[in-house]
Amino acid sequence: MLESLKEQVLEANLELNRRNLVIYTWGNVSGIDREKGFVVIKPSGVPYEELRADAMVVLTLDGRIVEGTLNPSSDTPTHLELYRSFPTIGGVVHTHSPYATSWAQARVGIPCYGTTHADYFYGTIPCTRPLSRTEIESEYELNTAKVIVERFQDLNYQFVPGVLAAGHGPFTWGKNALDAVHNSVVLEEIAKMSLHTLQLNPAAEPVSQYLLDKHFLRKHGPNAYYGQKTAEK
Amino acid sequence: MLESLKEQVLEANLELNRRNLVIYTWGNVSGIDREKGFVVIKPSGVPYEELRADAMVVLTLDGRIVEGTLNPSSDTPTHLELYRSFPTIGGVVHTHSPYATSWAQARVGIPCYGTTHADYFYGTIPCTRPLSRTEIESEYELNTAKVIVERFQDLNYQFVPGVLAAGHGPFTWGKNALDAVHNSVVLEEIAKMSLHTLQLNPAAEPVSQYLLDKHFLRKHGPNAYYGQKTAEK
Amino acid sequence: MLESLKEQVLEANLELNRRNLVIYTWGNVSGIDREKGFVVIKPSGVPYEELRADAMVVLTLDGRIVEGTLNPSSDTPTHLELYRSFPTIGGVVHTHSPYATSWAQARVGIPCYGTTHADYFYGTIPCTRPLSRTEIESEYELNTAKVIVERFQDLNYQFVPGVLAAGHGPFTWGKNALDAVHNSVVLEEIAKMSLHTLQLNPAAEPVSQYLLDKHFLRKHGPNAYYGQKTAEK
Amino acid sequence: MLESLKEQVLEANLELNRRNLVIYTWGNVSGIDREKGFVVIKPSGVPYEELRADAMVVLTLDGRIVEGTLNPSSDTPTHLELYRSFPTIGGVVHTHSPYATSWAQARVGIPCYGTTHADYFYGTIPCTRPLSRTEIESEYELNTAKVIVERFQDLNYQFVPGVLAAGHGPFTWGKNALDAVHNSVVLEEIAKMSLHTLQLNPAAEPVSQYLLDKHFLRKHGPNAYYGQKTAEK
Repeated sequence: MLESLKEQVLEANLELNRRNLVIYTWGNVSGIDREKGFVVIKPSGVPYEELRADAMVVLTLDGRIVEGTLNPSSDTPTHLELYRSFPTIGGVVHTHSPYATSWAQARVGIPCYGTTHADYFYGTIPCTRPLSRTEIESEYELNTAKVIVERFQDLNYQFVPGVLAAGHGPFTWGKNALDAVHNSVVLEEIAKMSLHTLQLNPAAEPVSQYLLDKHFLRKHGPNAYYGQKTAEK
Repeated sequence: MLESLKEQVLEANLELNRRNLVIYTWGNVSGIDREKGFVVIKPSGVPYEELRADAMVVLTLDGRIVEGTLNPSSDTPTHLELYRSFPTIGGVVHTHSPYATSWAQARVGIPCYGTTHADYFYGTIPCTRPLSRTEIESEYELNTAKVIVERFQDLNYQFVPGVLAAGHGPFTWGKNALDAVHNSVVLEEIAKMSLHTLQLNPAAEPVSQYLLDKHFLRKHGPNAYYGQKTAEK
Repeated sequence: MLESLKEQVLEANLELNRRNLVIYTWGNVSGIDREKGFVVIKPSGVPYEELRADAMVVLTLDGRIVEGTLNPSSDTPTHLELYRSFPTIGGVVHTHSPYATSWAQARVGIPCYGTTHADYFYGTIPCTRPLSRTEIESEYELNTAKVIVERFQDLNYQFVPGVLAAGHGPFTWGKNALDAVHNSVVLEEIAKMSLHTLQLNPAAEPVSQYLLDKHFLRKHGPNAYYGQKTAEK
Repeated sequence: MLESLKEQVLEANLELNRRNLVIYTWGNVSGIDREKGFVVIKPSGVPYEELRADAMVVLTLDGRIVEGTLNPSSDTPTHLELYRSFPTIGGVVHTHSPYATSWAQARVGIPCYGTTHADYFYGTIPCTRPLSRTEIESEYELNTAKVIVERFQDLNYQFVPGVLAAGHGPFTWGKNALDAVHNSVVLEEIAKMSLHTLQLNPAAEPVSQYLLDKHFLRKHGPNAYYGQKTAEK
């Protein structure tokens, strides 16, 4: 019964590669079946061209492997903690996509400089604090998620579906694995544009709250009017 | 009788994708049949690979849908107002192409730093003012065009076939849909070059009026001598 | 007897396109048969995908068309003057390749920051002065070459096979059309690297005279030892 | 018996090309058979599309050609000295990949700004000092390696598998030729990200020692837990 989820997670991982967000085995995507409580994630260190649906690893939300003979991605504890803390998300992505990673390395959140950003992320894409020595030396991957969750204490993770892990790289999430990849692609494009915006105008201002509301709510929530609503039903 | 216009608008939308100006469903192209007074535009949110000529939406200049079962692009009111205000244009394009969008986000017009620019745009490619709260909250897409038209009060829209919508992205136009796409491709290339020009020389000066005249008029107007004039007849 | 030259000039023009130095009909390549005194150049404004060897235009060095039904490139007078002034060159290229054009627009020569540059260009790749109003308004394309030749008064055009035309873009030359294209490709790569070098270190210094001598002379002149000398005989 | 090494060195050279680290004949890869004491390297100046395994040149560690009819890469003395000085490496790569070369031209080492870097290079990727006049004029290629070795006097070449040769470009090494290419690809990606990091935050700080330890040792050494260890046995 998880076959279709495995197929989707496989497809989402391959999409990362096709969209040029990853090289080699960098990056990983997972998806969750909330009803059964099972997470499907890419195995660790397997080249994209060799990935098959049946190589995907199935785990419980507390990290017990229930299917799969390969080691899951070393970032698995990060994914699991995000699923536990953000109860409505269905997919998680981690990449080292170059522009988003540059912002993460600069340890600066990406302000909302335009409608491209506002269409997907309701305000600044935040950057976490760096992990402490203790947080790094013990349960590092778990703590990577914990500082993300801490950063979202006063933020709506459904309205800002991504984050920059300081000194590391981006994580995004979405309603499922493919949607989370979509958000990673958009984040990379925004990260590129926003760097160039700052280079053109170091005093660049974020868009107004009204423009942010307009664009985000044009595509999200009950009053959205972008796309083919009737066709989706 | 609009079949060939639909084909051209489809082709122009696909060209946006082939030229790497758009990702996902970002961007939209329309074309107009001035004699009949009908505008053909891409439907909203349909992936480029699924676009077909018969999915194009046909509207009157005041926005009444006369053909097509899908919702038109959410930016349709912007296109229509541009057609109403700029009576000689035959095609309109909107993209979020990354370099042009960076200038729009920086809210800075692109000065004419070289002949590449002068060959297509007769002087600075202007940036609009940001929309007010009222303009955003009511008839946003219409007002997006109105501030463009306002910006061209003292500019010749036939000599400067494009604009940066502040905090949003570029719009271009042309004698038809494909020509408008051509101008979008050129604008993106100019936006990239001009950013790098400024990085090399923050005090870079625009080209002289004489060089601007020479290049623009070499390709446009009655004394043009670029290309194969006789072959075009 | 010019068929093979036409083929080479065609191939060199297509190579510009394949190497991503040009979009649309931007850019042009010519070649010369020094013995016969004939120059072969691309026609003006013809899309690369439609270019054929028999569309090439043949001219005398003083600009008389001796073969071809299409208009030659509008930059033809620039090419001819370069052939007249630089008697050992066999091919000329003009592009608007984005990084080299950015330097031309910034009106700054490219210092020799590394061995990549030193392997091909013996020192700074110079930038011309801007043309005066008179030079622009009368015989503009001819004068474009004249300021290049002026700039090389104290430079060896055989050792520095390229230049930045201020506010315009790069010209390169070589022993034949394909070699001139090769130099355009290298110039673009150097222009990109040198911009980034300056961004990393605004006080970056050119390489030493000794390193410049070593690399340039390792590949050029009687003591060259790069490549397969014997294989070339 | 060196056929498989020649095939691997060929494949590694072609991979440089496929990964867009080189244009034309730039760049070279070698591999060594430590037991036999033979080095296999690419011939000088042969286009990648014409490279064949049997064109590879075989040399002893002191530079005597034992097989091959073509001249070896002009950088061969650099490769040989690196093999002599770094006794556990099995492959060496030299490229002019654009971002890494920009750092080399700026003569600045690349600080470890993030985990992408920490996964492969244990700290700053150093830049050598420039060569002196004497070092350039006599045995230049040998001295290119000698200043690299000098730079690693207090560095562990196994933990930092690459270097920037000042005013020149990157060299990387690895357990074999393909692994050295892998490190070149990663170095280029890191060089790009690190430039952008600095542009976003000129005061960017390297990651903490704890994060560096965590990531490097997660993938290297006896406690590594990335990938499929059991599968590799």
